[in-house]
Amino acid sequence: MTDPLNVCIEQHRSYDSPGSVNSVGWTRPQRVVLANENNPLHLDCGARIAPVTVEFETYGTLSSLKDNAVYILHALSGDAHAAGWDADWEKDKRPWRNKKPGWWDNMIGPGKAIDTDRYFVICANLLGSCYGTTGPWEMNTITGKPYGLDFPVVTVEDWVRLHVRLQDYLGIDKLLAVIGGSLGGQQALAWAMNYPERINAAVILAASARLGAQGLAFNAVGRQAIINDPCFRNGQYYGHEPPSEGLEVARMLGHITYLSSQSMEGKFGRSFQNGDRPCYRLDKEFTVESYLEHQGRSFVRRFDANSYLYLTRAMDYYDAAGPYGGDLTTACSSIKAKLLLIAYTSDWLYPPQSTREVAKAILANNKPVSYIEIPSNYGHDAFLLEYAQTGPMIESFLMRRD
Amino acid sequence: MTDPLNVCIEQHRSYDSPGSVNSVGWTRPQRVVLANENNPLHLDCGARIAPVTVEFETYGTLSSLKDNAVYILHALSGDAHAAGWDADWEKDKRPWRNKKPGWWDNMIGPGKAIDTDRYFVICANLLGSCYGTTGPWEMNTITGKPYGLDFPVVTVEDWVRLHVRLQDYLGIDKLLAVIGGSLGGQQALAWAMNYPERINAAVILAASARLGAQGLAFNAVGRQAIINDPCFRNGQYYGHEPPSEGLEVARMLGHITYLSSQSMEGKFGRSFQNGDRPCYRLDKEFTVESYLEHQGRSFVRRFDANSYLYLTRAMDYYDAAGPYGGDLTTACSSIKAKLLLIAYTSDWLYPPQSTREVAKAILANNKPVSYIEIPSNYGHDAFLLEYAQTGPMIESFLMRRD
Repeated sequence: MTDPLNVCIEQHRSYDSPGSVNSVGWTRPQRVVLANENNPLHLDCGARIAPVTVEFETYGTLSSLKDNAVYILHALSGDAHAAGWDADWEKDKRPWRNKKPGWWDNMIGPGKAIDTDRYFVICANLLGSCYGTTGPWEMNTITGKPYGLDFPVVTVEDWVRLHVRLQDYLGIDKLLAVIGGSLGGQQALAWAMNYPERINAAVILAASARLGAQGLAFNAVGRQAIINDPCFRNGQYYGHEPPSEGLEVARMLGHITYLSSQSMEGKFGRSFQNGDRPCYRLDKEFTVESYLEHQGRSFVRRFDANSYLYLTRAMDYYDAAGPYGGDLTTACSSIKAKLLLIAYTSDWLYPPQSTREVAKAILANNKPVSYIEIPSNYGHDAFLLEYAQTGPMIESFLMRRD
Repeated sequence: MTDPLNVCIEQHRSYDSPGSVNSVGWTRPQRVVLANENNPLHLDCGARIAPVTVEFETYGTLSSLKDNAVYILHALSGDAHAAGWDADWEKDKRPWRNKKPGWWDNMIGPGKAIDTDRYFVICANLLGSCYGTTGPWEMNTITGKPYGLDFPVVTVEDWVRLHVRLQDYLGIDKLLAVIGGSLGGQQALAWAMNYPERINAAVILAASARLGAQGLAFNAVGRQAIINDPCFRNGQYYGHEPPSEGLEVARMLGHITYLSSQSMEGKFGRSFQNGDRPCYRLDKEFTVESYLEHQGRSFVRRFDANSYLYLTRAMDYYDAAGPYGGDLTTACSSIKAKLLLIAYTSDWLYPPQSTREVAKAILANNKPVSYIEIPSNYGHDAFLLEYAQTGPMIESFLMRRD
């Protein structure tokens, strides 16, 4: 199938070879246990979880002063493999490992915006995800079964709590910057609020202080599709056929919200799959239908349905002003890091106006903030696609020594 | 459960009692066979269908000159019961019959915008729907089984072809007006283009010449949810448990597209169901989730999943300019009726700019057209909710004798 938007995404990707001067080259994930029975991770929901293993990657070299570390925060479907080429992708049996470069390879590497000649870059997979860090797929040591829905509900703030444990493990007192888009941007904001002494700067892309009612609604529909799938078995499907059809529907829907109406119109419009006339059938007829199906099907090969439930729920719950009675200005009063907020005009999941609210709340505390609104037709996905515009902004922001 | 938007919709409804001077009173649907083996209905897909029974209602009195007939065209989930109170709702075993007034009762009645003291009003259920007119639920006389997916794909143009048969049956040479919103508006436009001699005027609300790529995508996801439901049984579920869970997901999703982001934000925001703190659970937590579930569940009690597939597909296929190589101006050249186009600012399914394209194409033919853009936060549903603004416009348009 012609997959114009994917072609477009592929064109945007850096295809430096692993040996290229601009690539971090071959990478290998590391795994570390950051919570055990003596030192469990306390979660917002009240539960304690242990053990917790975190999968992470690093690129570049930590300076002797340990003052050049940049922590990258991934979004819903991301992983620790942010840059370079997975050295063990063929040996490793885990289905998400592949020979593609990391998900933000066009931003991270020698001489790139997040310059690994200059910075020590860290990226860790999220708690509850399915890419190496402890999640619902993992054995619950108490029951001897995979967690499934026994996995505790996790929040953006919980993730940051765990990120800080990794920061401690790496012996880094203060990060030069934390950087993330979408759900990653919310982690960056939470980090700036909850651990103001642990970071110098935060870059928040395509994110805001909270998801709106429409976003909550889309997430609810996606989760319902997963739960309805008879293969879901109340989350205990490991070792059985997974609820792929439900997850596929959830991803198709999610994908629509990541694109803008304009970009879908421009890339697909109403073009038919077969020629220029309708075939009059209920089955796939328009190219946009096949594209979505392709997106859904490729996603279910690499993602876990339970993780989808937990990560979208964390996205729902995040509300920076929530603990402050809805007062975002007060919520932002603890922030000490310099902030760069980047919004994209056609992003309707975290629209620019919602990002501007964060900027205003920081200004209301008489603190400096940089807010940039990038004209883009790519919708929410712009934070991954508009690297040619976004990259130099992040690059110069990281270089600032004010 | 508190259901603020429904409360709002209910407040907008006219609750004249059946005996009120402003109500058309008790109504009874009529059924007529409009296609038989000798005179089957020819469909765009190439199939012929017979027999075809149409369920319709009429209100008011046809004048002796038969020049006061107004034909109402319903949208995706509508039926023939547009106004008044169903006299037989308790006797009739069909699950959609209820004691609520018709779906456009606030617009149709004595002294209302579509004044039944003045006009003879007709509304017919669509081919492929599940409210009395022939559809996938009906026995296929060839196989002796319900049609299910053997039902032919129908189009907006097919519906108009059948409406004209009802017009002929009622002996009305020329309708005073055809009026519809959303999918009903597309029927009105198709009627103006394909049967220019049969109508004097057309009122098109919240509709355009075609659905955009994003709308196609949402419909595709909804259909996929239905087809994935194990109860779907390739459409032959009649006499079995219907695919309610799939249809519920489809409706939840559809419902989001009928509301605007602003209206969802205003009505629900991020409010929790239980108090002001999160319960940290995957299950319904936010009021918007319960609202959507309520919408989905009440819909599956009254709608047929196969009809949902066929009607959304007709919505997908409609492309007024399609047969003219995409040239909407040429497509509009046949129109003789006077047209009133009404768009709503926050409608993102058929956004105002897409309705303006129709207005421009008509003007490009040096034909008059009235185009009104109504400021509204209700999104696509505004065509049902903004009757206080829309009603007087339709009323005066129908009175014009130019």
